[in-house]
Amino acid sequence: MAVYTEVSDEELAAFITDFDIGPVVSCKGIAEGVENSNYLVHTAAGRYILTLYEKRVAPSDLPFFLGLMEHLAKHGFPCPVPIRARDGDSLRMLCGRPAALISFLEGMWPRRIQPWHCTEVGAALARMHEAGAGFAMVRPNDLSVEGWRRLFEACRADAGSVLPDLAEIETELERLEAEWPRDLPSGVIHADMFPDNVFFLNERLSGVIDFYFACTDFTAYDLAICLNAWCFEPDGAFNTTKARLLLSGYRRVRPLLAAETAALPLLARGSALRFLLTRLYDWVNTPAGALVKRKDPKEYLQKLRFHQGVRGPGDYGLET
Amino acid sequence: MAVYTEVSDEELAAFITDFDIGPVVSCKGIAEGVENSNYLVHTAAGRYILTLYEKRVAPSDLPFFLGLMEHLAKHGFPCPVPIRARDGDSLRMLCGRPAALISFLEGMWPRRIQPWHCTEVGAALARMHEAGAGFAMVRPNDLSVEGWRRLFEACRADAGSVLPDLAEIETELERLEAEWPRDLPSGVIHADMFPDNVFFLNERLSGVIDFYFACTDFTAYDLAICLNAWCFEPDGAFNTTKARLLLSGYRRVRPLLAAETAALPLLARGSALRFLLTRLYDWVNTPAGALVKRKDPKEYLQKLRFHQGVRGPGDYGLET
Repeated sequence: MAVYTEVSDEELAAFITDFDIGPVVSCKGIAEGVENSNYLVHTAAGRYILTLYEKRVAPSDLPFFLGLMEHLAKHGFPCPVPIRARDGDSLRMLCGRPAALISFLEGMWPRRIQPWHCTEVGAALARMHEAGAGFAMVRPNDLSVEGWRRLFEACRADAGSVLPDLAEIETELERLEAEWPRDLPSGVIHADMFPDNVFFLNERLSGVIDFYFACTDFTAYDLAICLNAWCFEPDGAFNTTKARLLLSGYRRVRPLLAAETAALPLLARGSALRFLLTRLYDWVNTPAGALVKRKDPKEYLQKLRFHQGVRGPGDYGLET
Repeated sequence: MAVYTEVSDEELAAFITDFDIGPVVSCKGIAEGVENSNYLVHTAAGRYILTLYEKRVAPSDLPFFLGLMEHLAKHGFPCPVPIRARDGDSLRMLCGRPAALISFLEGMWPRRIQPWHCTEVGAALARMHEAGAGFAMVRPNDLSVEGWRRLFEACRADAGSVLPDLAEIETELERLEAEWPRDLPSGVIHADMFPDNVFFLNERLSGVIDFYFACTDFTAYDLAICLNAWCFEPDGAFNTTKARLLLSGYRRVRPLLAAETAALPLLARGSALRFLLTRLYDWVNTPAGALVKRKDPKEYLQKLRFHQGVRGPGDYGLET
């Protein structure tokens, strides 16, 4: 649930005159996303999403994010496109914050994941990795293995009230730091392709949004994130059918090396630890009265334990 | 900030098939309104607002609210129209809640009130009262003078932490109960025409929304509510120019009786007490962690005191 910055009708009207899209006819704050303020804006020319970047997004990263969306869209990937103002720039300022107007994508994100969603997501992820291949900018993943210990230390003092056994996390962290792969194929990854960032229409994937965690990392790590985000049931059970469909959807578009499939269980553990740690950090740092619903870190502890018990990529339904 | 009920894509698709508007192409939760869950829905046929009525709205009142919107729109008043499903009904059920799909109104509500907004609002209020004249249903105003003592008693025990001097409220309540008018012209009133319920486009009022406090009461009381909602500056100062424009905007469309203008100061005190009491009630009954921003009751104590000092309708800029 979002909208942190209230944009006045006058500030909005002034902002929109920099673009060639006619005057605003309506503007509604959207109750989605937890990082930024989002408005759905209608003008005579069409529908747009106006995003004001709040403090969690580093302004210096915005040219990467906006440039990536533009690059991907130009290469046929269904994602929002930043609209350039008359001066050629898409990155602007509004109400003292960096802001951008991006195109509106039709479709809805699925509240209940069906197996066919996973086939579509796997294929889209592969297409995104292909389309991103020629993107010239680089952004290191500050939420990968090098960043986890810092995150853990930052919330360790208060974490005991949320997670009973911190030694378990310490042990996992040490193991991942020691064994994390060094030489897998890398490229632009989305890094946050959760169901609420993927839209569907008429039983097909219609688009992917929210590139504000995108970075340069192992492409197979993106797949591991999707395994965690799409293939567990609400009761915590791993759904092998969904995993098989996700992975085969990906492989139909883009082959996986033997080294990538072999690394999947470890990458999935790392991805589970990453979301466990960021949720833990948010949990202990979100004031009780905040207008944000906190997400339970324990969900990801359960996922981590599942991947610890995996014997090999075959447990994900992969025929190796 | 709202959206209390999460509607799944499947439930929404099933709901929309009852209407003749084509399939849903997008649906976004709106971060506005504090009473109900609202979604902005696009279909091939156009844009709609989907409202799920949460527990604060009595289901038995919904035929009045929806019937009123339909009646007003039919009589030329710019307000949303409930869309009837194929079976002829606009009041439906969705996710276990009463729900309705209403037409989308263009325009934006003003964050900073300019004098010309007040002229438009006054005229629109008068047009609404005219258009509502032939509406056959009646709904007593449970938030008028008969309801205030109950509200006050319900939060009296905890109110001391918010308002220092409860005796001041007790005295005002007794006086209003004794002197409240009995024979002013009455009809359908909006009863909540605050800036966030009034849309403007191209410097004209484009529509009025949120009829979920509408009821049958003195029409001049609606004007008193608007005096409080539109004519005070953010620093608490009363703006006589805005009041004069509001009242003259009204009178240009619909005359006011001498008895109505004479009663305005008392009606404005009553209106101030009404919002003071409902805000006080919400303040002491909203849990600290709730996803709702509480509104300060003291703003209305300040307004109440202003109206207590008014010598007559001339202080509102009215030439009597």
